[in-house]
Amino acid sequence: MYFLERVDHTVKRMKSQAANVLTLLNLTLGAIAIVCILNGQLELSFWFIFLCALFDRFDGMIARKLQIESEFGKQLDSLCDLISFGVAPAFLIYEAVLFEFGLPGIVFILIYIICGAIRLARFNITEFEGHFTGLPITLAGCFVALSYLTVDLLPHYLFMFLVLILSFFMLSNVSIQKR
Amino acid sequence: MYFLERVDHTVKRMKSQAANVLTLLNLTLGAIAIVCILNGQLELSFWFIFLCALFDRFDGMIARKLQIESEFGKQLDSLCDLISFGVAPAFLIYEAVLFEFGLPGIVFILIYIICGAIRLARFNITEFEGHFTGLPITLAGCFVALSYLTVDLLPHYLFMFLVLILSFFMLSNVSIQKR
Repeated sequence: MYFLERVDHTVKRMKSQAANVLTLLNLTLGAIAIVCILNGQLELSFWFIFLCALFDRFDGMIARKLQIESEFGKQLDSLCDLISFGVAPAFLIYEAVLFEFGLPGIVFILIYIICGAIRLARFNITEFEGHFTGLPITLAGCFVALSYLTVDLLPHYLFMFLVLILSFFMLSNVSIQKR
Repeated sequence: MYFLERVDHTVKRMKSQAANVLTLLNLTLGAIAIVCILNGQLELSFWFIFLCALFDRFDGMIARKLQIESEFGKQLDSLCDLISFGVAPAFLIYEAVLFEFGLPGIVFILIYIICGAIRLARFNITEFEGHFTGLPITLAGCFVALSYLTVDLLPHYLFMFLVLILSFFMLSNVSIQKR
């Protein structure tokens, strides 16, 4: 009887932490993406950011399905998003293209990371009502990471514009329906 | 008269944003520290993290002095801290020493970044009562960055222990008085 109670307790605890474990997995993949950039493995870094995007879909979904949404989970999610969809894609595109432009290249990724942080801080203090105000950093990060695939196809100055436009949309008041 | 009113209004707005501007400056310096690591300029990266620590002292102090503490400022501060005192020092010590250990070196900095994120998320959802529970990531980040200065003096495996011990203390219940 005691054993069954313990199992039940453990299952409940695991359930309550499932979404947070996925969030931390997301953070881990984002940090590994940065390690890959440091080691010059840009394509591998792209795939890790791609995995982050997949896991990011799951953690929120699981939290809502199991009804285990928490303030702690929301905070953790934003912190992880800044790394996986802010820092990692910014440095991926910097190492792939923007480093060629010297200081302006650095300034553009700094603007992207700053706008991402402001977007996340703003999101954390507002009640969610079914739609996002401003482009979510998760989407912006996916666009930046996907743009890496077009590095050999497009003129390189276009990537500066892309980063700037995404930064602007993160801070804009554009309303985006959550799916 | 109108002119004086405008000046007064602008001064008030600048005052209310002063702490947030310092926080964003902190984030900028942290992101530049990562750029330096990418470019192999580890010593320069150390100095940028050192500047982050200086600015981090100021923004909270200014917010309290001008009585402009806000929930948005608190959120922004945590997001910036994760980059300037989590990601930046972790990758500095990785590139300086821990890369030598291969996969274990990567695992240790991942543990550090994950513990830092959990520490910050926990801090964000608790009311501050004059003391911190768990080592603040700002202090942990300073220790990791300072340890860079001893890379040529100490056996390299000690840096793995340092990172692990700091990670443990960030999640511990040790109480640290705020100064």
